[in-house]
Amino acid sequence: MKPLILVTNDDGCQSPGIAFLARLAARFGEVVVIAPHEGMSGMGHAITIKTPLRYRKHTPNGLYPVYAVEGTPVDCVKLAMRKILGRRPDLILSGINHGSNASVNIIYSGTMAAAFEGAMAGIPSVGFSLLDYDHQAPLEHLAPFIEQVIDNVMQYGLPANVCLNVNFPAEGDQKPIRGMKLCRQALGYWKEEFDERKDPHHQPYFWLHGEFICTDEGTDTDLTALENRFISIVPVHFDFTAHHAFASLPEWNGILAHNPNPATHEVTPEK
Amino acid sequence: MKPLILVTNDDGCQSPGIAFLARLAARFGEVVVIAPHEGMSGMGHAITIKTPLRYRKHTPNGLYPVYAVEGTPVDCVKLAMRKILGRRPDLILSGINHGSNASVNIIYSGTMAAAFEGAMAGIPSVGFSLLDYDHQAPLEHLAPFIEQVIDNVMQYGLPANVCLNVNFPAEGDQKPIRGMKLCRQALGYWKEEFDERKDPHHQPYFWLHGEFICTDEGTDTDLTALENRFISIVPVHFDFTAHHAFASLPEWNGILAHNPNPATHEVTPEK
Repeated sequence: MKPLILVTNDDGCQSPGIAFLARLAARFGEVVVIAPHEGMSGMGHAITIKTPLRYRKHTPNGLYPVYAVEGTPVDCVKLAMRKILGRRPDLILSGINHGSNASVNIIYSGTMAAAFEGAMAGIPSVGFSLLDYDHQAPLEHLAPFIEQVIDNVMQYGLPANVCLNVNFPAEGDQKPIRGMKLCRQALGYWKEEFDERKDPHHQPYFWLHGEFICTDEGTDTDLTALENRFISIVPVHFDFTAHHAFASLPEWNGILAHNPNPATHEVTPEK
Repeated sequence: MKPLILVTNDDGCQSPGIAFLARLAARFGEVVVIAPHEGMSGMGHAITIKTPLRYRKHTPNGLYPVYAVEGTPVDCVKLAMRKILGRRPDLILSGINHGSNASVNIIYSGTMAAAFEGAMAGIPSVGFSLLDYDHQAPLEHLAPFIEQVIDNVMQYGLPANVCLNVNFPAEGDQKPIRGMKLCRQALGYWKEEFDERKDPHHQPYFWLHGEFICTDEGTDTDLTALENRFISIVPVHFDFTAHHAFASLPEWNGILAHNPNPATHEVTPEK
C-alpha cells in the first residue's frame, strides 16, 4: 500500500501553494487534500466548537481528491484523521503558506497549527511557508528542496512530538537559494498599529496591521538563515514548558510554602 | 501612579470568571477589563485580520471600565496595548477560564494566547483556569491563591519571555485544595469523535467533540498536581524550538549537504 499523505494549509484549498505542494507529494504516495474552503490565515490553533463542521469533495485534476472544509486548519486535520481518510496518514504536509511563519509568526499560524496537530497525533508533520504574500509568486524552484525534506522525513521519521517549520526566502530578483539550514526560532514580536476609520453610520472600527520587530541577535536563528538566502528548518514541539524558568523562579518556592493551607503545602517542584 | 492591570479572557466579558478575577485584581492596582464581547473558547492564538475590529465601553459596577471587543483574546491584548489603555500595563491577567488549560489544552486556549501575547510584549502575564466548565462553579475559595500569585508576580516579576499557566482543580464535593505546585506541561492529546447529523435539507454536518488522553506518566506534571488537588503553575514560553531535537536529527546534516545547490550548501547547524 502506498504511503498516505494528507496535505492541508491555511490559505484555503484554492491557493496555488497547496496545489503545488500536493503535486509534489503525489510523487511520494497517495495524496488527499483536506483544507479550509477559504483563507484561514491568522487562525492559530483555533478549533470550531460553537458551530458544526461541513465539507464537500471534488477532484479538480484527477491526481488527488480535495475536501473543502468549512473550518480551520486544525479542524481539517482532526476531520481527516477521524472521519475522512479511513486510515492513519503516514505524513502530513501543510502549506505552502503564502507568507512567513518564521520567528514568532509560528504562534499565529494556521499552517503550523495543522503540523502541530499532526505531531500531537504522532504523525510526521511538516509546515512549509514562503516569505512572499503574493499568491502568484514563483514556486517551481522550491521543488527539489521540498522533495528532499519529504524524502528525508519518510526515510528517517522525526523525533517524538516534534514537527518541522520550513520557511523559504522570497524570490524576487535576488540571488538563488543557497541551501537549507537547521535553526532555532528567532525572538521577536509584532508592533501593531490600528488604523481607525468611521463606517457610514459614524461608528469607529479598527484595522489591525503591524510591523515585525526582531529582538534576536543570534546567528543561529531562522531569520538569520532566511536573510542570508538559506531555507530555514526549525524543529518545533508543543511542550511549552519553560524548563529554564524553574531555576529562575527560586522565590516561588518560598511563596508557595506560605500558601493559605500551610498544613498541606508542597514547596519543591519535583522537576 | 497605581499599577495598571489589564484583565482579559476567552469566555467573554460577561463571564463570572473574569468578573471575579477583575475584582481581586482591583486590590492591587487600576484595573481595565478588555475582553471579547462573546465566548471565544478554542480560538487559540487567532487574530482578526480579514474583518475590522470594533469595541464598546461600559462600566458595570463602578470598580473598573469594561471594553467589549468584537474579536479574539489576542485582538483584545493588542487593542489594549496599542489603542485603548494609553499606557503600558504593568500586569496582564487572563481568565478565570471556565475549563482546563492544563497539558496540551494550552495550545487551543484563547486564555493562554492572551497571556502569551502579553509575554511577547515583555509584560508579566498570567492565565488562570478552573477545571470546571460550569459557569456557576464556586470561585471564592480561589481568592487567596490568586492573590498570592498576583502579589508574587508584582513583587518578583517573571523571567523574560515567560508567562504562567495556572490551573485550579475542580471543587465539587472533594477535598480542599492542598496548595500550589510548579510543574511541567503534561503530554497528552485529544481523541476526537465527530457526531454526524443531517440538516433539514438532508445535508450532513459534524459536531466536534472528544476525550482527552494523557500519555505522560511523570509525577512532575500539571495533570498529576491537579489530580492530587494541587493548583498547577506551569511557566511557559513561546520559543517552540525543540532544542533537544537537534541532537536527534543527525541524518539531516548529511541530507542538507546533498542539497540541490551544492556549491553553496551549509551542512552544520550553528546551534
